[in-house]
Order: sequence, then structure tokens, then C-alpha cells
Amino acid sequence: MKRCHNFNAGPAVLPVPVLERIREEMLCLPGVGMSVLEISHRSKTFETILSETENRLRRLLNVPETHHILFLQGGASLQFSMVPLNFLTRDGVADYIVTGSWSEKAVEEARKIGRVNIAATTKEENYARIPNQSELRLDPQAAYVHFTSNNTIFGTQWPTEPEVGTTPLVCDASSDFLSRPLDVSKYALLYAGAQKNAGPAGVTIVIVREDWLERIPGGLPTMLDYRTHVKHRSLYNTPPVFAIYVVGLVLEYLEAQGGLAAVAAASAEKAGKLYAAIDSGSFYRGTAERNSRSLMNVCFRLPNPDLEAVFLREAAANGFEGLPGHRSVGGIRASLYNALPMESVLALIDFMRDFARRHA
Amino acid sequence: MKRCHNFNAGPAVLPVPVLERIREEMLCLPGVGMSVLEISHRSKTFETILSETENRLRRLLNVPETHHILFLQGGASLQFSMVPLNFLTRDGVADYIVTGSWSEKAVEEARKIGRVNIAATTKEENYARIPNQSELRLDPQAAYVHFTSNNTIFGTQWPTEPEVGTTPLVCDASSDFLSRPLDVSKYALLYAGAQKNAGPAGVTIVIVREDWLERIPGGLPTMLDYRTHVKHRSLYNTPPVFAIYVVGLVLEYLEAQGGLAAVAAASAEKAGKLYAAIDSGSFYRGTAERNSRSLMNVCFRLPNPDLEAVFLREAAANGFEGLPGHRSVGGIRASLYNALPMESVLALIDFMRDFARRHA
Repeated sequence: MKRCHNFNAGPAVLPVPVLERIREEMLCLPGVGMSVLEISHRSKTFETILSETENRLRRLLNVPETHHILFLQGGASLQFSMVPLNFLTRDGVADYIVTGSWSEKAVEEARKIGRVNIAATTKEENYARIPNQSELRLDPQAAYVHFTSNNTIFGTQWPTEPEVGTTPLVCDASSDFLSRPLDVSKYALLYAGAQKNAGPAGVTIVIVREDWLERIPGGLPTMLDYRTHVKHRSLYNTPPVFAIYVVGLVLEYLEAQGGLAAVAAASAEKAGKLYAAIDSGSFYRGTAERNSRSLMNVCFRLPNPDLEAVFLREAAANGFEGLPGHRSVGGIRASLYNALPMESVLALIDFMRDFARRHA
Repeated sequence: MKRCHNFNAGPAVLPVPVLERIREEMLCLPGVGMSVLEISHRSKTFETILSETENRLRRLLNVPETHHILFLQGGASLQFSMVPLNFLTRDGVADYIVTGSWSEKAVEEARKIGRVNIAATTKEENYARIPNQSELRLDPQAAYVHFTSNNTIFGTQWPTEPEVGTTPLVCDASSDFLSRPLDVSKYALLYAGAQKNAGPAGVTIVIVREDWLERIPGGLPTMLDYRTHVKHRSLYNTPPVFAIYVVGLVLEYLEAQGGLAAVAAASAEKAGKLYAAIDSGSFYRGTAERNSRSLMNVCFRLPNPDLEAVFLREAAANGFEGLPGHRSVGGIRASLYNALPMESVLALIDFMRDFARRHA
């Protein structure tokens, strides 16, 4: 069967060579008489997969020795609770910069633990932009500053992380993780569900600075205490073996592509072409402000919702999948994760031109 | 490459037809132009996978309409905390029947939330048996009674669930789930990591009685509140799509085998043959008392640890994987999960006879 143009917002398209490798090894891993689905997480085979995956990630993102890399479960949604459980006290305060629905959910969970200072929000502007540095009202007492680096629903992205002085910086990087180089040393903690650029759903990558772990209080549920997973190197209990294996294969593929600088250049090219097509006339209208535009999720509207419905119907009939905007905002969203080929972007642009010509 | 005899304790052997089906569909699910790793969890494709998986499980286990079926993350280890967080109050008490290391860990997490009454323990006897009904010292005030249906490390299994009157019964069924029929109506909550009989690591199945959910207090972290997952039918956030898909394929395979009665008969036959081989002489010695023996994990010793080391080395050289006992107890453990073919059991028995002849 012909593969579609996959513009899903996550879980999302994966590199074909990675899928082919999984297929090839499904009944027997090379040199091992069993499937990756059947190996013990305490086996040498998995030890090697896990440490190679960690090492590749450390190389690709240039993760310093001061930071641990963890492979957990529960997605960003569980991190929304784990971060404040570990680092916010009942009478403490944390800064949250709110740039969309996912930041809102993170705030909601933090408020169950301690006090939240909304350091900035662009809610009044429908989250169409990322706040400026000068708008941030940081609390000097804050245990940390939390932000969302890319907002899938609204199609905005921080060009670079906010300046927060000496306050520990925490980032939900789920939707642009591994799309560009990052100065990890600026972060106390960074988390990302894998299901955009890094792999399949079912594993959450956490990078946390060693010296920050000292703040964690006693008595937390063992599975929710970051120190458990640091101490046991993500092997306290059975980890999501297959998802970690696939992340390893994706990282190997990204290294072969030339690393994150090459990946970022390819992303900029794909997004540049699509935004140029949107801006080239008045039929399509990008929803994010230009200097806040995401390179991962390109959100745009047509002149009216009826035309959008026709657009989405025709697009699906032509092999474009995943283009409806998030159900909370509507419109069109084209997600351009690493594994999406330029060919799919060019095909979408052709389709958009043709559609505009017929319906303008 | 030749597949080995896989006696792993979990993650464990899976049915070859299931692995072949995954391989066949890896680049494109039938009728869908993408891999199961690339589909949206909000797509119709995944909706169908999820509801078919739930329906198959409901049929196979005869799960009554009073009970919800959830697909979560974090393994049994996270359930050790979720159960008391949802159902034990700070000044309340819960009964725990302790039959091994996993029960001990469950107790440890419950003690962070409320008071635990050890209703019975066989720790003094190295957990070599399941307590009798008459030994249970249940607290009439208990919020629930928790037990572990099968103890992988010590090779013991409850022949049937304990009688606990009207107190809600909670079971960690991780290591014998789907190995035999179960009267689900007797349980308030039952949980199982999938990675033994049900699928790969990365998904935890929870079955919970609707009317018990009313006891859950407000203010829990959203991801740790069972009601979240009931309300959103396991789709509050991105679920482990692939692991659920594989569970669905395993359930389809089990139905084709004739359901859980047929599966239980096959298990009894496999374990029966292996225990008979152990009991047939004095060279091998089963560690569990006879009426507490597990049909899933057959634990035995040789005359001395040196011989055990030779046995394990020779076994590995002959294609038998996963036979070392748990690192906390040593010895030999042969796990006989559903997908382990009788052929592997017979080959092991042959090897054991030959080994005993040479070393007796």
C-alpha cells in the first residue's frame, strides 16, 4: 500500500529506514534468538540498547555530564505533576509562562501542590504569540520557571529559551525536542514525550541536572521521585523496552543525517516554503504572529470554515493525513516533524495553490 | 536466525503469529497509509484498535458491565501507589496479604499514604507457600484487601482468590493475568503489567468496578486519578499506542486458541510435565510447597550452587534463555507463559534429564 503524506501532530511520521529496520528485526534481533518485544529488561541485550540510546542522545544534544537522561512513562501529562511534586513545596511558588493549552494544564497540576505565579500569558491574544522577555514578571522566590517551548495547538514556538537568571529553568519540550540544537546546560529539567520527533508514543524523555535533585523531599511515591529513576538508570521497574529501542533507532538515523544542525536546517527549509506559500496571497492566513511562528506546526485558516471543511475533505482524498487543526481551535494544521519528507511539503503546497485557484 | 527457547520471566515470549502480523503491518496498517507507530491516537484507526482490544478482553475474561477496563502506563509499580492514593485515606487502614517481594513493595507505597494491616505473610518461610484462608487476619475496617495472585520470584500462585467478605478485593495479577478464567465480579480492582501473557512492556491493564470510583478523593494529580482514565476511556493523553495494538493481537490469538479455559488447560499440562520431571528424582528440588506451586513460574534448585551455575551455562549454550532465578534468590526459574510452546518445555525436560544423568 502507498504511504500517505503524514502531517499528524503526534504520534507522527517516522523515518522509513527506521520502520524497515524494526520490520527486519521483529522476529529476531541480530544475534539474539528473540524479538525485541520478548527480551528481558535485565538482559545484556537491553542494557546495550539502553546505554547506546542514552549515549546517542547525549552526543546529539550535547548533554553535559551534570545532567541525567531518563526514560519514563506517562507522557508530559505525568510530568505536569512530577515536576511540582519534586520541586514545589506547599508554601512555595513557581513561575509558569503560559503560551497555550499545555501550559495551562501544567499550571493546573502545579496548583494542586503549591502556589503558581503566572509570569506571563498571551491567552488574551488567543495564544497567537510568544511573550517578549520584557513582559515576564518573574518571582525572585520562585522554585523554578516553567515554559512550553513549542505550542502544537496554536503553532507558536520560542525562538530561544527565556532568560530567567539563576532560577532553575524547566521546559516542556515535547513538540520540538530534537528539532534543533539546544543549550541543555541552561535547563534544570527538560521533558518530552517521544511521539513527535524522537520515536513512538509510550516513552517520555527527561533530562535533569544532578544538583537539583537535592531539593526533592522524602516520602514521595517511589515511581514519582526522579531520584528513583536516576539511581536505577531508568530500570527501577520494567521500562517501555520497545519504545526505547525505536528511539535509539531514530537517534541513529538523526546522527546519520548530520545531527541536529542539519535537522534544524531541513526544518527551516520545509517551514519556510510552507509559510511562503501561505503568505503569497490573501486566501490563506497564518494564525501565529510572524516572529512567534513554529517550525513544527504550521497553523492557518481559509476565508471561512465552510471552505476549510472542503479543503480538508479534498486533502484527505488526495492522501494528505492529519491536517485538521486541533479540535479546540479548528482551521488547518500541518505538522512538519523531522521525518516528514520535503516531498510531502511540496505536494501540500501544490495542492494548496490548486485549491486556492479553484476557490478564490 | 533460529529462535531460542524463551523462559524469560517478563518481558516474555510472544506468539510467533503475532510477531509475524506486526512485521507484516509495520510500514502500513491495512487500508491505512501509515505504520501503527505513526497514527494519531485520536484517529478512527486507533479508536477501532482500542475498542476492539477492550471488547476482546471483556469477552475473554467475561468482564461484567459493572467494571471498566483501562490501559495505563507505569507498570504495577505505579499501581502500588495509585491504589492507596485513590482508596486509602490518611487515617484509614488497608489489608495486605504479603506473599513475596512485589507484595512488600505494594505495602511500602501504601504506608506512605495510610495505615497497613499485614493480614498474613509467609516471609518467615521464605515465601514458599500461599497462606491458608484460616490464617488471614482481616481488619473489618479495611478500605480494601490487596493480594498478589502469582509470585514470579518464589514460584507460588493462589489457587483461587482469598475470601474477604464484603471488603473490596484488589489484586496485582501481573504475572498470571490471562492464564486462566477469573471471576472478575469478585474484584473491586485488578491490575496487570502486560509483559507476561498479554503483550509487550509499556502498558498496564486495570479493571475497576464503577461503584468503587465514588470513594476517590478530590485533588489528586489528574494522571493518578482513576476517574480521569475512566472518563476519557484511556485517552486522556497519548496512550502507548503500539503496546495496546500488540495486546489486541495477542487477545485475538488467545480467542483463536479457544479462550482462557483452553489456555489454562495448556498451562496445566506444561507445568504438570515440568513439575513431574523435577519430582521424579532427588536431583532437582522445587522451592514452592506443592499446593502453592505456580503454573507460570517453576522455581527449582540443584544439589548445590556450583552445579546450578554449570546447569545455567550449559542451558544457555543449548538455546535455553531466561532460566536464572531472580537475582534475589538464585536457583533456576522456568517461566511458562501462554506463548511458550510445549516443544520448549519438552526440550528443557530432556536437557534436565541428560544433565542429571551426567552430574548425579
